[in-house]
Amino acid sequence: MEERLSCALATKDTKVLFASDIKDLSHYLSSYGDNVFWIFDTNTRMLFSRLPEKNIVIDSGEENKSMRNLEKIITAALSFGSARDTRLIAFGGGVVLDMAALASSLYMRGTRLTLVPTTLLSMVDASIGGKTAIDYAGAKNIIGTFYPADEVIISADVLRSLPEREYKCGLGEVIKHAFLSDDLSLYNFLIDNRDEILSRDKDKIRKMIYLSLEIKKYYIEQDPQEKKGIRSYLNFGHTFGHALESISSFKISHGEAVVWGMRAALDAGRALKITEQECYEKAVKLMNSYGYNTERKIGRGEWLSYAEAISRDKKKSGGSVKFVLLKNFGSLILTPLEKNTIQEAVLQSAIIKF
Amino acid sequence: MEERLSCALATKDTKVLFASDIKDLSHYLSSYGDNVFWIFDTNTRMLFSRLPEKNIVIDSGEENKSMRNLEKIITAALSFGSARDTRLIAFGGGVVLDMAALASSLYMRGTRLTLVPTTLLSMVDASIGGKTAIDYAGAKNIIGTFYPADEVIISADVLRSLPEREYKCGLGEVIKHAFLSDDLSLYNFLIDNRDEILSRDKDKIRKMIYLSLEIKKYYIEQDPQEKKGIRSYLNFGHTFGHALESISSFKISHGEAVVWGMRAALDAGRALKITEQECYEKAVKLMNSYGYNTERKIGRGEWLSYAEAISRDKKKSGGSVKFVLLKNFGSLILTPLEKNTIQEAVLQSAIIKF
Repeated sequence: MEERLSCALATKDTKVLFASDIKDLSHYLSSYGDNVFWIFDTNTRMLFSRLPEKNIVIDSGEENKSMRNLEKIITAALSFGSARDTRLIAFGGGVVLDMAALASSLYMRGTRLTLVPTTLLSMVDASIGGKTAIDYAGAKNIIGTFYPADEVIISADVLRSLPEREYKCGLGEVIKHAFLSDDLSLYNFLIDNRDEILSRDKDKIRKMIYLSLEIKKYYIEQDPQEKKGIRSYLNFGHTFGHALESISSFKISHGEAVVWGMRAALDAGRALKITEQECYEKAVKLMNSYGYNTERKIGRGEWLSYAEAISRDKKKSGGSVKFVLLKNFGSLILTPLEKNTIQEAVLQSAIIKF
Repeated sequence: MEERLSCALATKDTKVLFASDIKDLSHYLSSYGDNVFWIFDTNTRMLFSRLPEKNIVIDSGEENKSMRNLEKIITAALSFGSARDTRLIAFGGGVVLDMAALASSLYMRGTRLTLVPTTLLSMVDASIGGKTAIDYAGAKNIIGTFYPADEVIISADVLRSLPEREYKCGLGEVIKHAFLSDDLSLYNFLIDNRDEILSRDKDKIRKMIYLSLEIKKYYIEQDPQEKKGIRSYLNFGHTFGHALESISSFKISHGEAVVWGMRAALDAGRALKITEQECYEKAVKLMNSYGYNTERKIGRGEWLSYAEAISRDKKKSGGSVKFVLLKNFGSLILTPLEKNTIQEAVLQSAIIKF
């Protein structure tokens, strides 16, 4: 086990540890003894032949990131006699980690928390930064807190069995991080190591995750509670993307939707002469080289539900939804957009009938 | 409107404002315009002849500090289109304030928050310090967060119609604060102005609240998230008291229970030669002069449920429940207690049958 990164937030520092393999990880966690409470989902429980005694297994899938399951976790913690010094250890993707972290922040106003992300998306996205959440009344992540984990343990090992769709989902967020840094170190790494990354070379993945987390850390440390607009830059592609995810009833994966949303934001930025042409081209090149479909458009019949989903976006502030646009790598702005601009970026052209 | 106190916590400063009367309060709040969401209970709604449009009214009473009502508040916020910059303004006692503040901390990971405490207890206890909560599965305050309000507005006016039992309930916490300061300023103020305070002289009440908040502020600023043990000193009397509240099914008021719990803690402290005799006598004198019944004992038949309630206390840590004991005014310790010591402090003597 090796400490590689530490992320300092107002209320807590999160240590990010890289485990050399699953054995290393198990060995490390077993040192915590008995005052722990384990949260798995129906996939991650398979990582262990025998589960520890105090555990709960949550059904996997976004539809389970719910008040009902949050209550199940809290009820289980009560039944195990967990206290504020109990360590909650969560194994899973974003759904389990966001929900377990919310439970950890709420139970007795906060327990100890170890997150073990088991998808690429959750390694680069949900693991640091302290955002916890469940969905509620059809609104994604509408209930949550800021509660950084004490530690995050990353084992590239567990990605070997990740379905291709899930892996590509995580790569979407990695690509986003590549656009958020002006030194292009992650951008170039992704371009230069495309084949090894797509075939899941363990060392390349580890390096990619490290570079990605370094960029994310830069933004969240400056604006832990998303009050200055800086942290909002991490939502590049998300306002457009979330609404697509939402109208697809989450059939389109988060990462795919974010890549699509970044393309829409790039198109909007170019139309408004905000995004520089060279940056636009390099960005689209990276997304295409990893095989994402950024040409998809919203059908005109879907516009009303898409617009409704946009207006419910939680980044809404002062009555208007704000979008993150890219000026150049690492240089972003937060701005409302005219309806026309949004439509031009996402809608199919009208079919003109004679 | 006058700013009298500011309480600085890790994530936010809370301003405490004293309104000269209800008109002053209304005038101040109306300046916030339309991006607000009002929370009342069935008592505090009576303060206004006409309620503002975006409001929710919660049934008063501890049994309503529930997940169900938390969800009702969040659902209403969604239906009003509230966003992160919406100001939630809560009027009420501890039940409404704790729950509204929890809703505010959870909705989109945190909205703006103004608390208007309308009971003496909530003015001196729930208003500053950022503890939010609901009860769950029979466990008091088991679900909550740390989320300081942006501002707390105190109007001694609203206490005129407070039932005597409620007023005495708040005085219990004020008396507790008097024991937590070594300069005895609040202690002496309470002794010297007993009659005016009991007859609710407005100016004396205001001064008493100010002195009380100054003492509370001293403890929470040093330990905002109750991690160093310092903030726990504010729980003096609470571990004994909560358990009594709990086995009485909350028929005994919080303040009464806390005063009773402080007497139990004083008795335990004296038995262990921790509490100094002069301090013990002065403390009991103050509690008695305000007419509290500190002689009550737990029946032997209630011991099991009392002990069970103690063991569920959320201050439980490392497998043992810790109690706050008073060495002298402003000097406290946090310690586990033997079963014998607890029994001697709270139980009726056995009736010896021949």
